[in-house]
Amino acid sequence: MRTEIAGEDVWLIDYSDWGQAPKDAKKANIRGIVDHHKLGDITTAEPLECWIRPVGCSCTIVYSMYQAANITPSKEAATLMLGAILSDTVKFNSPTFTPVDREAAEALALLAGVEDIDAFADEQFAAKSDVASVPADELVLRDQKVYEINGKQFAIAQLELTSVKPVLARLDELETALVALKQANNYHTALVLLTDITTLNSTGLICSDEAALVASTLGGTIEGSVIDLPGVVSRKKQVMPPLQREFDVA
Amino acid sequence: MRTEIAGEDVWLIDYSDWGQAPKDAKKANIRGIVDHHKLGDITTAEPLECWIRPVGCSCTIVYSMYQAANITPSKEAATLMLGAILSDTVKFNSPTFTPVDREAAEALALLAGVEDIDAFADEQFAAKSDVASVPADELVLRDQKVYEINGKQFAIAQLELTSVKPVLARLDELETALVALKQANNYHTALVLLTDITTLNSTGLICSDEAALVASTLGGTIEGSVIDLPGVVSRKKQVMPPLQREFDVA
Repeated sequence: MRTEIAGEDVWLIDYSDWGQAPKDAKKANIRGIVDHHKLGDITTAEPLECWIRPVGCSCTIVYSMYQAANITPSKEAATLMLGAILSDTVKFNSPTFTPVDREAAEALALLAGVEDIDAFADEQFAAKSDVASVPADELVLRDQKVYEINGKQFAIAQLELTSVKPVLARLDELETALVALKQANNYHTALVLLTDITTLNSTGLICSDEAALVASTLGGTIEGSVIDLPGVVSRKKQVMPPLQREFDVA
Repeated sequence: MRTEIAGEDVWLIDYSDWGQAPKDAKKANIRGIVDHHKLGDITTAEPLECWIRPVGCSCTIVYSMYQAANITPSKEAATLMLGAILSDTVKFNSPTFTPVDREAAEALALLAGVEDIDAFADEQFAAKSDVASVPADELVLRDQKVYEINGKQFAIAQLELTSVKPVLARLDELETALVALKQANNYHTALVLLTDITTLNSTGLICSDEAALVASTLGGTIEGSVIDLPGVVSRKKQVMPPLQREFDVA
């Protein structure tokens, strides 16, 4: 990942918050944004191009940009975009999923030469779930997004797994990594969502100044550092909005 | 114009700043934004749809939305959108103008039954220039946008005219209205751009805490309340960016 972009022409993909951008992003020329989240706090000094849609995956939007430009994605690009849509929408099951995502995925599958979308998705999820050899301090950073609400920083990582058991078996190790992560960055909350894409439930591991409040805000029950979050699969739709409402007392 | 939108589902057209929205906009559900300006400070709690493009007119974008949805605009809608594009781009002469605006205008002219785009534009500009019967306190508000830069409010109105002389003949009246406007709203700057769409120059009338600094920032020469702004036609591209750079010392 690029971390220095000052003075460069850039497009931001999958976020519109300064907090998620490289530290020097305010000195870059932001020419465009492709995103499917809530509108963040980024502002620009010049007119730009924004493709922001309430769909399940930024790649669904990228595919519509290909269409608008009358360009056919290469097989490689189509394969990557299909994988992204299936991952982001948890194989068309996330509450962020829309029919537009399915249309894009089906068109991309044709271009990618993928005949069985379901099998392709399962293979991808199995590969992503194989985290036995990944150190705990990497796992707690996986797909991490840091949100600032009313001056408090919430770092929320997410692992999509075919089963959460092998990861929960490493609870001690993960707790140590979470505590270290929170302290090093002075976060209000460090949270890892272990999302079971088979049962469509999540388990949260948390280290927070207000762990009980975070748990109750998310409708979950907490025991030690573990929050049971039945039915929660989408950070964007099921985790961020309630946290925003609870903690944004501005 | 609607001024109360709390609790309602809304789309914002032609801006993305809280300062330009109805006062209770933070309590509305912002579902989408169509705009062609720099990205402003509006944020949302939920994912939304943004169609933001660096083109000359928001109606150029609205036309592309019709196309994306495979809907043909009615004759009435096409006529209004054509008029907006010709006005915003000063008949394809503004620095914000892009070839996409011309394509949209030509397609809309066909739908609107307008054979001579040039004549249609001239007729519209003549009608807009006929401001003899419009009171000064209305004129200083025409097409007004209020920008906040580093805590200072800049209210900038714009009149597009086939000749600025009849308006400049009413200078005393306009100065009185500008002073009243600035004081009533505690603006840092109240500025009216009289844009001559024949010569493509502007004359600014200003009442400001720092009139000389505003004038020099815009590359103009000031005499009393009148700033000569040769070559300036676009508030968005030629007025706002230099003001932003000069006054945003955050």
